[in-house]
Amino acid sequence: MTESVLDYMTRLGRAAREASRVIGRAGTAQKNRALLAAANALDAARAELAAANEQDLTAGRANGLEPALLERLELTPARIDGMITGLRQVAALPDPVGAIRDMSFRPSGIQVGKMRVPLGVIGIIYESRPNVTIDAASLCLKSGNATILRGGSEAIHSNRAIAACIQRGLAEAGLPPAVVQVVETTDRAAVGALIAMPEHVDVIVPRGGRGLIERISRDARVPVIKHLDGICHVYVGEHADLAKAERIAFNAKTYRYGICGAMETLLVDQSVAQDFLPSMAARFREKGVELRGCERTRAIIDAVAATEDDWSTEYLAPILSVRVVDGLDQAIEHINRYGSHHTDSIVSEHLADTRRFVAEVDSASVMINTPTCFADGFEYGLGAEIGISTDKLHARGPVGLEGLTCEKYIVVGDGQLRGQATV
Amino acid sequence: MTESVLDYMTRLGRAAREASRVIGRAGTAQKNRALLAAANALDAARAELAAANEQDLTAGRANGLEPALLERLELTPARIDGMITGLRQVAALPDPVGAIRDMSFRPSGIQVGKMRVPLGVIGIIYESRPNVTIDAASLCLKSGNATILRGGSEAIHSNRAIAACIQRGLAEAGLPPAVVQVVETTDRAAVGALIAMPEHVDVIVPRGGRGLIERISRDARVPVIKHLDGICHVYVGEHADLAKAERIAFNAKTYRYGICGAMETLLVDQSVAQDFLPSMAARFREKGVELRGCERTRAIIDAVAATEDDWSTEYLAPILSVRVVDGLDQAIEHINRYGSHHTDSIVSEHLADTRRFVAEVDSASVMINTPTCFADGFEYGLGAEIGISTDKLHARGPVGLEGLTCEKYIVVGDGQLRGQATV
Repeated sequence: MTESVLDYMTRLGRAAREASRVIGRAGTAQKNRALLAAANALDAARAELAAANEQDLTAGRANGLEPALLERLELTPARIDGMITGLRQVAALPDPVGAIRDMSFRPSGIQVGKMRVPLGVIGIIYESRPNVTIDAASLCLKSGNATILRGGSEAIHSNRAIAACIQRGLAEAGLPPAVVQVVETTDRAAVGALIAMPEHVDVIVPRGGRGLIERISRDARVPVIKHLDGICHVYVGEHADLAKAERIAFNAKTYRYGICGAMETLLVDQSVAQDFLPSMAARFREKGVELRGCERTRAIIDAVAATEDDWSTEYLAPILSVRVVDGLDQAIEHINRYGSHHTDSIVSEHLADTRRFVAEVDSASVMINTPTCFADGFEYGLGAEIGISTDKLHARGPVGLEGLTCEKYIVVGDGQLRGQATV
Repeated sequence: MTESVLDYMTRLGRAAREASRVIGRAGTAQKNRALLAAANALDAARAELAAANEQDLTAGRANGLEPALLERLELTPARIDGMITGLRQVAALPDPVGAIRDMSFRPSGIQVGKMRVPLGVIGIIYESRPNVTIDAASLCLKSGNATILRGGSEAIHSNRAIAACIQRGLAEAGLPPAVVQVVETTDRAAVGALIAMPEHVDVIVPRGGRGLIERISRDARVPVIKHLDGICHVYVGEHADLAKAERIAFNAKTYRYGICGAMETLLVDQSVAQDFLPSMAARFREKGVELRGCERTRAIIDAVAATEDDWSTEYLAPILSVRVVDGLDQAIEHINRYGSHHTDSIVSEHLADTRRFVAEVDSASVMINTPTCFADGFEYGLGAEIGISTDKLHARGPVGLEGLTCEKYIVVGDGQLRGQATV
């Protein structure tokens, strides 16, 4: 192209801002029509999608892409089914836009409340998975936002083919094409431009590895909704039901090693360690999970010696660090110090202990008698998620449609004036 | 001091993070005790406060500080009364911390809801007014946060004297001194350090002029809750009650010229301009408000010719720009384009027009038949405000106690496991 990347991105930004006004006031039925039409378009375009994906896979193989990345890049028929189902699920979700709450009269006679509205323009930056294109576009559209999608360059043909289906959906519903725009250039400067135009973009949601997210957070001139590590803990308390604790801890680690809600450190109260650890360790060992323990742990069970680094490592693998703690205070302190404020759980039948754990553990999700792997938008009832935020401001924890909106004040009067008796 | 500014600020940050755990779990009664004891300490320290303030004023005069700044710096007896009343008002507000909502069961058997919790550590950066020290400290304390306060160097003695009273309050309530810390150095590098330690500070609230806020937003490595311009509009619609419209527009401009909710641009529907403008203009002229109009305005009333810049200027002065618009669409477009997304009002008796205005104007507060100068935490029923946010994420509009907190998920189960039938 002859225009510079900056000019190109500015053009996308302007078009997105304009389109955001249209999608922001679109009714629920019109938005659902676009989502369902896009689902049908995907279903009708399976051959094109496969061909485009094959181009990316061929290029990826030629460029020596790692097998794990190639696997993520692949648009299998099952993944296409998943995208279609996802679109239909998002269409079926309640529309958060326009909800009004807490309208109440003030002594001055004005009535004040809040209304939920779209954020405006959302920039999504993601890596290889092309199905993120559909996830992100559908959630942003349903929540009344315009989106600019910047996928990985290795998925560019797949993303274009998917975007074409979304465009068919928008057109059928009479919505402007700029409601969902896919960045067509693979130039990395496009990302730098996207995260530095607050006049056109209201928030950036990066989805990918820690490196990507740190880089974007550092350079962004726009707010970022981000997910960093998931260093999740299960604390088996003094008053835990130990059989229940064993099932919970096992599930928290082994449900899936690679998810951010997987337990990485098991904290065991010293009063139950002797009773709890041997059987727990046997079960993990049978499953092939490597245990790394503190000194007190290693006095009870066989385990590799844990180093200081282990307490702040997200393994995403069949490895678990285990620490015996003095009691609830030390458990909370450990979690707040070494954890990533993602998801942490206490196993206990003691009401006061669970209340303190919930109040004092500074994490996006705090749990009682439940494995940390439940941290998920679907499990929480959000219907879908665009990610899990480890930030405290705006959206914390799994982010669904509500996290892509904000609330503004609405004030209704009938000629009341400030600083004067009412008219 | 022999330690570097960076080391000093890091020490403050660490102490604040530790203190945030204590204040975060403090009960409502203990927090109120600290607030009321601080109020009594202020009342008992009037002589010390006056002496400290006199030091600042003398230095200010010697340094040739502008009269307006000297005025803001002054701690008159009435302002000390105001601080004492403010502390007692904040003590009387409901405590937002710990509120749990929307606990509901999911098909898996887990129960999911949200709990309101403090943000953690809040850094406040402000300019000359020493009473901000009390406003900010009291709101942060009540909402369970630790605070680091960085006031203007010209108010350092006053701020120290006020901080000493807060310390007496904290001590009487048995709370650690680091719950509220005042930066003791006037070195400007302290600000740079404060806004760049995400491990110790969760959010920055700058209060001051546009220059300060832009600088901080640009350099911060921590989220910022900020207030930029207040370019507020009143749109007199086709179906306005013109007598009501005149009262509203007059109040919106003249209640106080210097507040961010003051109207800066009056938009008048072309269908009513001929009937509305002459009497409105006469009233503004009598009050000494300079009018700057578009061409269509100047065809009806005497006014200086408005330039393109006028539409995006926050006068904070007895100056008003006036534009005749074609209708509701153009009014909304003008506001979204030239406004600052702060507060905008429609005057109309037409339901559909007011509904569209409320939905489509992209501002923190949208109003119907009410002057924009009502944009204020007290008028909205928040009890107090730490500022008015023009951001969209997290807090939008007047920010009270709730804006200094966030919500985390709480999940309660009884041994349910993910991906398996419940136990």
